[in-house]
Amino acid sequence: MKALGFIEVSGVVAAVDALDVMCKSSNVEFVTWERKLGGRMVTVIVTGTVSDVTEAVECAKRNAQAPVMASNVIPNPHDETVRMVKLSASRLVGKL
Amino acid sequence: MKALGFIEVSGVVAAVDALDVMCKSSNVEFVTWERKLGGRMVTVIVTGTVSDVTEAVECAKRNAQAPVMASNVIPNPHDETVRMVKLSASRLVGKL
Amino acid sequence: MKALGFIEVSGVVAAVDALDVMCKSSNVEFVTWERKLGGRMVTVIVTGTVSDVTEAVECAKRNAQAPVMASNVIPNPHDETVRMVKLSASRLVGKL
Amino acid sequence: MKALGFIEVSGVVAAVDALDVMCKSSNVEFVTWERKLGGRMVTVIVTGTVSDVTEAVECAKRNAQAPVMASNVIPNPHDETVRMVKLSASRLVGKL
Amino acid sequence: MKALGFIEVSGVVAAVDALDVMCKSSNVEFVTWERKLGGRMVTVIVTGTVSDVTEAVECAKRNAQAPVMASNVIPNPHDETVRMVKLSASRLVGKL
Amino acid sequence: MKALGFIEVSGVVAAVDALDVMCKSSNVEFVTWERKLGGRMVTVIVTGTVSDVTEAVECAKRNAQAPVMASNVIPNPHDETVRMVKLSASRLVGKL
Repeated sequence: MKALGFIEVSGVVAAVDALDVMCKSSNVEFVTWERKLGGRMVTVIVTGTVSDVTEAVECAKRNAQAPVMASNVIPNPHDETVRMVKLSASRLVGKL
Repeated sequence: MKALGFIEVSGVVAAVDALDVMCKSSNVEFVTWERKLGGRMVTVIVTGTVSDVTEAVECAKRNAQAPVMASNVIPNPHDETVRMVKLSASRLVGKL
Repeated sequence: MKALGFIEVSGVVAAVDALDVMCKSSNVEFVTWERKLGGRMVTVIVTGTVSDVTEAVECAKRNAQAPVMASNVIPNPHDETVRMVKLSASRLVGKL
Repeated sequence: MKALGFIEVSGVVAAVDALDVMCKSSNVEFVTWERKLGGRMVTVIVTGTVSDVTEAVECAKRNAQAPVMASNVIPNPHDETVRMVKLSASRLVGKL
Repeated sequence: MKALGFIEVSGVVAAVDALDVMCKSSNVEFVTWERKLGGRMVTVIVTGTVSDVTEAVECAKRNAQAPVMASNVIPNPHDETVRMVKLSASRLVGKL
Repeated sequence: MKALGFIEVSGVVAAVDALDVMCKSSNVEFVTWERKLGGRMVTVIVTGTVSDVTEAVECAKRNAQAPVMASNVIPNPHDETVRMVKLSASRLVGKL
């Protein structure tokens, strides 16, 4: 897995909008999302090269419909970090 | 998948009402809903042509029983965006 | 499916009470309930003829133990609306 | 099913305590509980004769550790009400 | 099942810490936990002799990292109470 | 199982960031996470030697993006504590 990009917004409308903005701004892929944290918070995680992920997250912060509450880019995620993210993504595998 | 329309309201009564308003206003189909975000928020996602989806979302904002907290129309969703929405919808497949 | 009636209350005690009031006031059937929206909100959905559903929802508003936070009657639900409600009900099928 | 008794309290400690108080005060049986409503609310439902259920609920209100936020006794629950309660209980069946 | 001890704290860090304090203070066993009540509340239930459970709960209140929001000791739980607690524990059975 | 380290933060962005900081600071492994407590709280649990876990938790507190709301190091967790943590981790087993 390459770099990981993260954004956190309020609600699913904002989350899908932010993902669309990110994927249209650069070459990133959707990895997983978390949406049962309470307080309406939704997390979207994407992957790609460091520059693509950075551009995507910056674009979401500038152009997405709703304010981005938290964001991060991890250029070189540790193996354990990748494992945690893959565990989140694993519940989506085989569903499409 | 064609255009995607999104509305977010408080509670299931408002969500079903908004869907009914949308489907009666133009030719849109129900895609999926999310209702475990906390804070009573419910998201409804519909699909159709850009003009049908736009009309549906505008109608929900004008005529639905409860205020629409957030809304969006994505005329040409990115493939990754479609994938995220289909993952949400996939848990409903085969249930009817 | 005929008309749909909806009420939203705070908590399960109020929800079961309201359902009991509705079913004793007119000839309606329990369709489904939603109770994981957060904020203690519970939605109860019933079905029947328009007049029965209207009477049931009015009765719940007048006579139920707890205040009804939101309510609605959809006399002629759109097919997509029926599908959304049936998807909610489908998780209950085969359990009794 | 005979009469139904309901109490709603904050948290699982209070819920188990209230059930214990109810079952020791009169001849009632545990039917089901709901605990994912948000806001820490927990609902406990018991069944028995009208007088036993009434006594149990009154006892919980007088003697349980924590305040009872909501309570109800339905002496002769409608068939649809019984069905809704049994659907809640059905997820517990076969687990012991 | 012997006596039951209960503590309720805010968050999983506090819950695991309290369990560790309880198990090191006296001879009690972990029975189950509940952690999806909302509002970050976590309940931990232990079992043992009355004196062991009492000592464990008192120790958690004195020495655990975080304040104990609610606690209880039921020296002789009713059969129905034991059944409710075992139903909570049953979802953990066979997982280790 | 060796020492256990715990941190609690607000949101998944902060949780993954804190895990990455911990794993890069010392030789710890990801054990499990809890993220449905409500109020956006996320708990991350790691394991390793006492000194590695202590260093990891301290590093997360110093260097992670978001404030650590709660943290703990249990140098010699009781067997029952290990069992509770393994039960949390067991839902992740076999997913990768």
